[in-house]
Amino acid sequence: MSVVPDAEIEISAFSWVPPFARGQVRDLRVRWALEEVGLPYRVRLLNAMEERPADYFDEQPWGQVPIYNEGDIHLFESGAILIHIGEKDERLLPREASERARAIAWMIAALNSMDPQVGALTDIDTFDPDAEWARLRRPAVVERLAMRLSRLSDSLGEKDWLEDRFTIGDLMMVATLRGVTDAALLDAHPNLAAYVARGEARPAFQRALVAQFANFVSEPA
Amino acid sequence: MSVVPDAEIEISAFSWVPPFARGQVRDLRVRWALEEVGLPYRVRLLNAMEERPADYFDEQPWGQVPIYNEGDIHLFESGAILIHIGEKDERLLPREASERARAIAWMIAALNSMDPQVGALTDIDTFDPDAEWARLRRPAVVERLAMRLSRLSDSLGEKDWLEDRFTIGDLMMVATLRGVTDAALLDAHPNLAAYVARGEARPAFQRALVAQFANFVSEPA
Repeated sequence: MSVVPDAEIEISAFSWVPPFARGQVRDLRVRWALEEVGLPYRVRLLNAMEERPADYFDEQPWGQVPIYNEGDIHLFESGAILIHIGEKDERLLPREASERARAIAWMIAALNSMDPQVGALTDIDTFDPDAEWARLRRPAVVERLAMRLSRLSDSLGEKDWLEDRFTIGDLMMVATLRGVTDAALLDAHPNLAAYVARGEARPAFQRALVAQFANFVSEPA
Repeated sequence: MSVVPDAEIEISAFSWVPPFARGQVRDLRVRWALEEVGLPYRVRLLNAMEERPADYFDEQPWGQVPIYNEGDIHLFESGAILIHIGEKDERLLPREASERARAIAWMIAALNSMDPQVGALTDIDTFDPDAEWARLRRPAVVERLAMRLSRLSDSLGEKDWLEDRFTIGDLMMVATLRGVTDAALLDAHPNLAAYVARGEARPAFQRALVAQFANFVSEPA
């Protein structure tokens, strides 16, 4: 367990979110990265159901979690935080220039080419499943996500990870694919389903997941 | 003009796209960054209306542009390419750790927190304006984008750039905001409208835009 009250690194997280969001809130990605490299951190808890303190927006423009503070480093956006942690430890981000660049490319691919498609389906399946617009729109959203998954499956092939070894690119891609609301879309590609399971089986992921759940109270205050 | 036939750096771009996409295709971001630091590049042209060569997917999993090749560096995703170029030249990415981290945070914010909202409105206004789902869904999409723009306007305040000076964070954010299909949403925040104009007024942006247009033939072959 890397959660330590007086740790130098501070992240923010929620003390309560609805059940469907548990295990999906984005502080999980940062906890996972910190667990991979054994860096302790402390948690500043916010109630997702309440307005943020006004000065929180100075740290996180959208009012979301996580933020990341470490000395004079003040960060938001989980992708930026992963690069920062990766630069501390080559187990997450290779030092060699071309390998490093590829790891970052896959991380950005998860954030900008996969996550928006995953999110478009979440908007339908989780947030508005009974709406008429959602019924009309869903086939096109599924088709676009399915195409991306098919291309990713081709890129992964028989490898364990997107490049030669686990990096922040895999961490972000697995975290993103975990958000796919229609399991059949992932299961259509056994290598992708196995890839997600491989990521979730990592001890660091398991510790991060337990730590996120440990911060949730059963009911909003 | 930094387009040089025998340059070491190669990017891919399209030889034809529909008029609405001209000036928006994402090779523009990479051309802009290269122009900012004076690095010459050559262009591999693809026809957007034709199937990609099969081996192109080995370089760009989604079949999109741009790719970026430079010696043994083989990259896709414009965000990853901007980090790579920024690491060559501190005019785009500061060397000091906290400034560097902030520049990357804003770039990721553009890619993962702003671009998906901009893209959701493009899906409606550009690609499906007359659809029933679009009519029903548009108010919620506008509301979400407007909220993000409001928060970004607060973060920018009276500054010229998101941090103390222009970085890849501003380059990516300006490029993203240029894609907002409803100008009234940007114009509601005079500081954001001025910010986009300030980015577009940079000589490097102007050279990049001219270079992208110079590669378009008037009709698809």
